[in-house]
Amino acid sequence: MSVSTIYTDNNATTPVAPEVYRAMIPYLTEDYFNPSSMYESAQHAAQTISRSRRLVADYFGGVDPSQIIFTSCATESNNAAIYGVAKARPDRRHIITTTVEHPAVLEVCKDLQRGGYQVDFIKVDKHGKLDIPEFVRALRPDTLLVTVMHANNETGVIFPVEQLARITKETDPTIVFHSDATQTVSKLPIDLKGDFKDVDLLSFSGHKLHAPKGIGVLYLKKGTPCRAFMIGGHQEGGRRAGTENVAFIAGLAKALELASENHDQIESRIAKLRDRLESGILENIPEVRVNGAGAPRLSNTTNISCHYVEGEGILYQLSAEGICASSGSACTSGSLEPSHVLKAMEVPFTAAHGSIRFSLSRYSTESEIDRILEVFPRIIANLRKLSPYWDTQTNRPRSGASAGIM
Amino acid sequence: MSVSTIYTDNNATTPVAPEVYRAMIPYLTEDYFNPSSMYESAQHAAQTISRSRRLVADYFGGVDPSQIIFTSCATESNNAAIYGVAKARPDRRHIITTTVEHPAVLEVCKDLQRGGYQVDFIKVDKHGKLDIPEFVRALRPDTLLVTVMHANNETGVIFPVEQLARITKETDPTIVFHSDATQTVSKLPIDLKGDFKDVDLLSFSGHKLHAPKGIGVLYLKKGTPCRAFMIGGHQEGGRRAGTENVAFIAGLAKALELASENHDQIESRIAKLRDRLESGILENIPEVRVNGAGAPRLSNTTNISCHYVEGEGILYQLSAEGICASSGSACTSGSLEPSHVLKAMEVPFTAAHGSIRFSLSRYSTESEIDRILEVFPRIIANLRKLSPYWDTQTNRPRSGASAGIM
Repeated sequence: MSVSTIYTDNNATTPVAPEVYRAMIPYLTEDYFNPSSMYESAQHAAQTISRSRRLVADYFGGVDPSQIIFTSCATESNNAAIYGVAKARPDRRHIITTTVEHPAVLEVCKDLQRGGYQVDFIKVDKHGKLDIPEFVRALRPDTLLVTVMHANNETGVIFPVEQLARITKETDPTIVFHSDATQTVSKLPIDLKGDFKDVDLLSFSGHKLHAPKGIGVLYLKKGTPCRAFMIGGHQEGGRRAGTENVAFIAGLAKALELASENHDQIESRIAKLRDRLESGILENIPEVRVNGAGAPRLSNTTNISCHYVEGEGILYQLSAEGICASSGSACTSGSLEPSHVLKAMEVPFTAAHGSIRFSLSRYSTESEIDRILEVFPRIIANLRKLSPYWDTQTNRPRSGASAGIM
Repeated sequence: MSVSTIYTDNNATTPVAPEVYRAMIPYLTEDYFNPSSMYESAQHAAQTISRSRRLVADYFGGVDPSQIIFTSCATESNNAAIYGVAKARPDRRHIITTTVEHPAVLEVCKDLQRGGYQVDFIKVDKHGKLDIPEFVRALRPDTLLVTVMHANNETGVIFPVEQLARITKETDPTIVFHSDATQTVSKLPIDLKGDFKDVDLLSFSGHKLHAPKGIGVLYLKKGTPCRAFMIGGHQEGGRRAGTENVAFIAGLAKALELASENHDQIESRIAKLRDRLESGILENIPEVRVNGAGAPRLSNTTNISCHYVEGEGILYQLSAEGICASSGSACTSGSLEPSHVLKAMEVPFTAAHGSIRFSLSRYSTESEIDRILEVFPRIIANLRKLSPYWDTQTNRPRSGASAGIM
């Protein structure tokens, strides 16, 4: 990272922790052996995988390590979970999910829907909160699977996954419960033998928690009907074929170890920085709103809508100042459609188009927040000068400017 | 690698080339950005992927880079190819493959067979050569897919994939042709615009060619019916969702660049070492056979059967001497069944159980071969002392010892 870069896009990806990098070096250099090989030199690689699996299992409350499957990313874990359950129980054809899932869940559900499955997409309210009565009503005798994310990547809004899993199992213990926890692992405690014991499948990736891009995990509770997604060799107990990425498995385990150390202090420091950023913006820029502010949220995330400006314009100006953030919209896919998440929250379109997500990490600093607070109000003011809906004289929207719902 | 290790198991995995490691470091440290992000800092990661894709495309004769899809391993590429084609053309239900494919192809074909597909597994002769007349007879009007490996991982026997692809397309250009080239990329020239132009899909992984474990490629010719295997985000042109493993993509491209440099000299050096190893063993150990010797073979591989000894015993003794090799049998999966490849070649069971594969690389040295030739005959002689079928006095099998077919 160049000295001048201020990285506040940690929900997109995170810097690899130096400790994680160091933990991986041996497996990218002299310790290159295939962990399936029988000779002594390869035993260390095999042991590294076992130890890493145990560390991951311990992180989640000491579950049986055989329930931890290493994958290449959260997308693979999500695909493996949903397709795997569908393949294992072809007799049930109803799935419940939400309107605000990550595409790696949403697209799989839509694919199954095209294949004849019935899928209920549970709505959220304007705060991003899930409609729990609607969720409960959606559970049916032929429900195969519930898949609900733990926290939203765009807004940071947390869903009560432990409660939804409990309700699901109380209604019918044979319904499988999956959660995409990509945004919460390392941030929120997840005890798979405690509060989260009713969760059968849990997905996440390493690169959101200071491990590299290219490693993920699928927790698969024993007894859960789920067929392997990638088949071939005997790796991962026959549940995920393919030669293991030993280096990144070691890195992921180290990242979770780091996440455990001083967890509460680090999270509260991040929360303070986020709160200061958020209140600084609210105080200094008129006509802004924090999306998801009325719901429980991740303490590192703030999704801010600035009326009458375009997210892409903001990003470009921030980038020129060395500040990395993300627009709430799906612009990265080349689409001009606003974010499906903000749309589901019925954020007015004049606001949704001007949404910016800042997501912090353990490496965020006070001076970075100061710098953002210095430049961000100026950027918004300059962009609004170009807007036909904005009155620069009064620094307010022109009378008659509409804030219609998308 | 400790000084004393002699690594001759390069068909299992290869040491990461130092140049490859150096090419990856930036993306595991300061250049950690998500290539999908819009800000300037992330552009370098996106450019690295584009440049790597172009390098891979150039390696295969300058194909259109958009036909190169990065995956997490060859197993994923094989699963993606076979399931992807099946999903795209549900009207055709016949597949042709061989009895000696890697499990990542074989198991997918068997899974489809259980799901109602008809699969022809073409046999090989005792040299490991494919039965081409049987192959031609197997092509049917409802054939969906042909999937034939380029070279066998256990014996190194090369199949005439370019010829099989041409026959397939001449018979019916709508049949899709896939080849698992995991063991040949970097070793044999593959021109996807030349000799291999009739190949529609080609799989391989990085870790067989001095890139790390956790990266693979699927070549997917434009116009080939193939649905995406992992879905979600827009990465890889919508054909493989999931945040890209930028570091390993850069590493794989560098590994292919290295493979191109002085390719012929390096391969002929490896071939000479292999030939010396093979003839040294044949001269110094009675009752051995080279499996696949009567067929075109990879120049780095020798699969040697030593009658009346167990492969595991040989491996253990070699390991004690610091020599890493592999047994021809599938012992790594915990099974005591002999290798399906040697079984298909009708290798006598007294020989198949005592099979050892040595597979060399650019890092193999003459002194390593000397050392193997020094210890290997002694190991076999010692193990045979324990065999009831072996007469230590004459150093020959006891009269009446059977060499039955498996």
